Amino acid sequence: MAPQALGRDDAAGAGRLTLPIQTGMDAQVRELMERLGADAVRNSDGTELPELVHELAAKVYSTYFVGRGDNAWADAHPDEATRIFLSSDRVVATDESPLAIDLTASWFAEQVRPDVTCDTARWWQAYDRTVGEPLSPAAWRLEEDGHTVTVLEPQAGHAYTVSYLATQTWDPTQMYNYLTNGWDQDPTRVKEKPFDVRHEATWAHVRAHLDGWLRDHPEVDVVRFTTFFYHFTLVYGPDAKERFVDWFGYSASVSVPALEAFEAEYGYRLTPEDFVDAGYYNSPFRVPTRAFRDWISFQHRFVTSRVRELTDAVHAAGKEAMMFLGDNWIGTEPYGEHFADAGLDAVVGSVGSGATCRMIADIPHVRYTEGRFLPYFFPDVFHPDGDPVAEANESWLQARRAIVRSPLDRIGYGGYLSLAVEHPDFIDRVEEIVAQFRSLHTCSGGQRPLAAPFKVAVISSWGRLRSWMTHMVAHALWYRQTYSYIGVLEALSGLPLEVSFLSFDDLREGVPSDVAVLINAGGTGTAFSGGREWDDPALVEAVNAFIARGGGFIGVGAPSDHPRDGVTFQLADALGVDRETGWGLSTNRPLEVQPDHFITADLTASFDDGEGTPDVVVTGHRTQVLDAADGQVRLAASHFGAGRTVYATGLPYNADNSRLLHRAIFWAAGAESDFERWAAVDPRVEVATYPGGQLLAFNNTLEPVTTQVHTPRGPRTIHLEAGGQQWLLGDDA
Amino acid sequence: MAPQALGRDDAAGAGRLTLPIQTGMDAQVRELMERLGADAVRNSDGTELPELVHELAAKVYSTYFVGRGDNAWADAHPDEATRIFLSSDRVVATDESPLAIDLTASWFAEQVRPDVTCDTARWWQAYDRTVGEPLSPAAWRLEEDGHTVTVLEPQAGHAYTVSYLATQTWDPTQMYNYLTNGWDQDPTRVKEKPFDVRHEATWAHVRAHLDGWLRDHPEVDVVRFTTFFYHFTLVYGPDAKERFVDWFGYSASVSVPALEAFEAEYGYRLTPEDFVDAGYYNSPFRVPTRAFRDWISFQHRFVTSRVRELTDAVHAAGKEAMMFLGDNWIGTEPYGEHFADAGLDAVVGSVGSGATCRMIADIPHVRYTEGRFLPYFFPDVFHPDGDPVAEANESWLQARRAIVRSPLDRIGYGGYLSLAVEHPDFIDRVEEIVAQFRSLHTCSGGQRPLAAPFKVAVISSWGRLRSWMTHMVAHALWYRQTYSYIGVLEALSGLPLEVSFLSFDDLREGVPSDVAVLINAGGTGTAFSGGREWDDPALVEAVNAFIARGGGFIGVGAPSDHPRDGVTFQLADALGVDRETGWGLSTNRPLEVQPDHFITADLTASFDDGEGTPDVVVTGHRTQVLDAADGQVRLAASHFGAGRTVYATGLPYNADNSRLLHRAIFWAAGAESDFERWAAVDPRVEVATYPGGQLLAFNNTLEPVTTQVHTPRGPRTIHLEAGGQQWLLGDDA
Repeated sequence: MAPQALGRDDAAGAGRLTLPIQTGMDAQVRELMERLGADAVRNSDGTELPELVHELAAKVYSTYFVGRGDNAWADAHPDEATRIFLSSDRVVATDESPLAIDLTASWFAEQVRPDVTCDTARWWQAYDRTVGEPLSPAAWRLEEDGHTVTVLEPQAGHAYTVSYLATQTWDPTQMYNYLTNGWDQDPTRVKEKPFDVRHEATWAHVRAHLDGWLRDHPEVDVVRFTTFFYHFTLVYGPDAKERFVDWFGYSASVSVPALEAFEAEYGYRLTPEDFVDAGYYNSPFRVPTRAFRDWISFQHRFVTSRVRELTDAVHAAGKEAMMFLGDNWIGTEPYGEHFADAGLDAVVGSVGSGATCRMIADIPHVRYTEGRFLPYFFPDVFHPDGDPVAEANESWLQARRAIVRSPLDRIGYGGYLSLAVEHPDFIDRVEEIVAQFRSLHTCSGGQRPLAAPFKVAVISSWGRLRSWMTHMVAHALWYRQTYSYIGVLEALSGLPLEVSFLSFDDLREGVPSDVAVLINAGGTGTAFSGGREWDDPALVEAVNAFIARGGGFIGVGAPSDHPRDGVTFQLADALGVDRETGWGLSTNRPLEVQPDHFITADLTASFDDGEGTPDVVVTGHRTQVLDAADGQVRLAASHFGAGRTVYATGLPYNADNSRLLHRAIFWAAGAESDFERWAAVDPRVEVATYPGGQLLAFNNTLEPVTTQVHTPRGPRTIHLEAGGQQWLLGDDA
Repeated sequence: MAPQALGRDDAAGAGRLTLPIQTGMDAQVRELMERLGADAVRNSDGTELPELVHELAAKVYSTYFVGRGDNAWADAHPDEATRIFLSSDRVVATDESPLAIDLTASWFAEQVRPDVTCDTARWWQAYDRTVGEPLSPAAWRLEEDGHTVTVLEPQAGHAYTVSYLATQTWDPTQMYNYLTNGWDQDPTRVKEKPFDVRHEATWAHVRAHLDGWLRDHPEVDVVRFTTFFYHFTLVYGPDAKERFVDWFGYSASVSVPALEAFEAEYGYRLTPEDFVDAGYYNSPFRVPTRAFRDWISFQHRFVTSRVRELTDAVHAAGKEAMMFLGDNWIGTEPYGEHFADAGLDAVVGSVGSGATCRMIADIPHVRYTEGRFLPYFFPDVFHPDGDPVAEANESWLQARRAIVRSPLDRIGYGGYLSLAVEHPDFIDRVEEIVAQFRSLHTCSGGQRPLAAPFKVAVISSWGRLRSWMTHMVAHALWYRQTYSYIGVLEALSGLPLEVSFLSFDDLREGVPSDVAVLINAGGTGTAFSGGREWDDPALVEAVNAFIARGGGFIGVGAPSDHPRDGVTFQLADALGVDRETGWGLSTNRPLEVQPDHFITADLTASFDDGEGTPDVVVTGHRTQVLDAADGQVRLAASHFGAGRTVYATGLPYNADNSRLLHRAIFWAAGAESDFERWAAVDPRVEVATYPGGQLLAFNNTLEPVTTQVHTPRGPRTIHLEAGGQQWLLGDDA
């Protein structure tokens, strides 16, 4: 049975695959494209498309850089270089003598330099951080070296910073590639300077350049924009290593004309502090300010409107316009309200996990999406001792469960094909992955699998704008402080559920009627748990009332954490737990664990809460504690009015926790009796059922698994190889 | 050498010891008193002094209860029973219908009951906790059952509480003793009702009763008040088990006359919320409000003035007045500014650790202090399978290092001697302990040992008022959330340093010139780390400036933690570390550990930070990281201006950590070169040197230790038995 089903995958045909190609290996390119069934080819940053592309029966993608790659233009128009708001380090005055602050002590001189040409009294701010107020421009002086500011009469014991507009002299992604690949050894490479299309001269140049390029490249079918105008915030330190990275950062989207246009439109003036944000630079972990939200909206409209002019030109040339989700993507906001206006045909993004896969696959208003899989064919993995197969397996097994629920239309790879072919075992593995991927489209009949008859909503300050994007710092990288929360998204990305993203503002207007369960996951004070948003009785009232009327709520970490009026979690009453910060140690809170519960029924090992959240206690004797350690709650369930709540101290992604979340959602929704059909008995295996009656079972691990799945004809035992999948079609199902 | 030195301890003579005695064991009492050299005897709660006391050549202590033990009076004056402010549980309205709140759902009906006789519109408050405001008295109704309040028109989704004045009908300590000892089986026992001397009739009665009692008890030399008027907050739940305990709590010090007198004096009215404090009841972990500080001051003056009338009577009767530090001690405030007015001769307290020992021994304005050692002779330890020797060892070894630094004048035991004599090994051990204790007085020549030539100050919201009392919930009990901070006090209690306690208000006025090192230890938001006190640039400025001018600062846990203006620790600049709450994850903070440092030179194992403090990062490259784990700082040292700072994520008490703190203090004070003479090489052994040239080395563990100590004639190797001590006198030293 199993081999037969797997055989169908292999027969699923060709297409849906993009390969990077390069000059000097034509025969290998032909052979690989045939073997893997690739129907599109691309170049990468630093490679050229070979002449061969004219002969291949494949679509041709070409990377296209809008705001860099023309140093002649950049050098001729230094005033139109992109800018960034930066802050100096904090410097404390140890006495009352004039205090010199080196603005560039922590930044990379080759990438950024203070913009001394602007009106520094307006676009620079010296700040007394101890008091929390800016100094008057008369209270500081810029020295002649161009990078030292002297606070003339500091107060001893106060910390000072200087926020300043800086000029960017190196595109961060090109800088990363340059430094990572040792291009300083290659005399053909230059350090590409970014320029800003907010300036009309540069914009006219960019428009004209694209028109010429489109004329000159008839072989190109798809213009792969990498990307548009503003890079996410990535600034190196004096050691030429990463110092600050925020994949969502708008700090480098600024310019004097834009700031002035903003003031004209919004009626108020933004200051450096609105961007520097006391040194946090409006990290998405910060509950966003009104000014920052306004700036995002302002630039989103600007960026999408200018992108539209580019995509119109691409379409007029008979080509498709594809956007790479990353690099200079700031302002595009794929989940923003003006994204449709950009006129893009497709989005391609790097798949690092199930959640990032959904982040790409769920983007609306494009005809297709493509996932660029890991590993990237770069020397950091593709060296003689590297193990690209392990990375490919990890990436595919994490991504597949997301692709099953929300199918990407295409997959692809990037980098240097010349490196990949040195690892034949890797090519073999790619062949298998591509076959499994194609079967999701062919065997499903083009349909999405069924999902539970209710919606789940992840709530945060960001709501829909950051769909599948919560808790990210750099794109999909692991952080100790985030994995225990991002595990919630990762689990959701592959569960048979319809997931939406709501902001606290949305909740204040009332929870949408099709949402059965709200999920709030994150650390104290962050935009993801909500922080100071919960200092609002109307929000607490709205959520409490939703639950009391029969809604479900799941909190992970520090949900609604904002100490006030007797509780730390503002939803402590509903959750049945609270975080004990010390103020309530005088209250004895007995802890009785109830080990058997619907929610924990499939745990195969003790509950793993990742970094956990310390000091969680029950608020009353009605809380069902499902797991505890060291006198602290780790997992709890409560009834609240007609509704139900579940709390976990952390939920890193693993098979057990994904199953636990799946069960918790069904319990919170009061839908336990409907659960069985949505899951295999073994949590390592997941199932998808389709409107046409097909059933797909897939093994998320690298061990073979035998387990039972639920079919309309009753339970079926199936065996899946390591990483394998099996379709039960028609009578099989 | 060693046996000879130990022999001197044995020869130290008799005295300084109080034993509990009881009727029916005269011969054993005589024999024990002779053997142990006891010079005082006492009874306990529930035991009578035997006739024998008239013959003994010993001082006689008798327990005396001021505010309980006379149920006839209590029953005749129910209006003068003590009161307490309590809160109901939080109850959430799930719809808009009238909401019934049972005031007593979480409290023990035999101990407290709502006072429906008072003006409930004034002394009760229904509270909307979601909004954070009280309801008007017209918005709620007390039902006829006397314990249900109905909120007439609640808002769905809001949480409500009722704060109310309640009558106390059982003295908490007597209740504890009663329930612990099963006195419900003893028909001679009654449940003692407390009465309040704030009422003039009760006060006159209490005065007269003492006069009569003094006349009737010529055999008594020392009136051991146990204690005075107001019990610390200890309330049981409906299960007759502890529900709330705060050894510093003033909730049960209230009465309508006192509240009215307060209003008359202070010019503002206190409300139930001023005591209920959203359910935290002004726990000492809360940064105290002005109202609570005023109430403490108000009651401190009242209590000490009324105690003075009692002590005057005692003195007039030719006896001494001793106060037990505990039970009904609220308002006495041994470190308060009016304590001297109470006219006490002595304080006795239970010794649970070095810090509690110092808490007793350092009390000013008394002629002598006495430590009641553990274990208390109660059946919970003194049963056939109990191990009282282990408890005695633990208590003594922890306490001795504190007693060495600040000698208690006397030690004693409490409970039932009849139980203790069933454990001869325990009596043997007591004999050894008493000999070691006496030697601290005899061999020292009555002098205190030398201390470093600079002061160390522990800073918190409480300052001097809570000297040696920080982080306590119930007297000296272990709490998971506190041991990592209380370890700092415990270490200090036995180090050769002069320790003071300063409040943030003190610091605002300037750090005293003899203080070289400030220590701030505690969890986020607590009065011990300072919480919202740090929302004050003047405080930050004062401490930064102190350090910059050459001061030392040691932070443990979450020092100055109050997220604001770019840092979580307001002293992050000086400390060189900060707590990363998520907002700064975008900033890359490399972590290089410097394993060899003066501070860590004596660690015998890896650094133990107890519960630790997660997410601590360096603020710059000048921070010396001495220990790290999982990418997080655990121990760091920094230079700041002319001063130095040390940071540790936690510091539970053990020999290594005590030594580490000792070294950290010397490093922060810039006094490394003076360190050697203050410590033995092995951290398990400590040394005390005296003005007369004597040197005491003592072994804090139950293993024999051979180590080197520093003497004026050079290093000396000594061998100490388990728990042993050795005096080097005159030429020996």
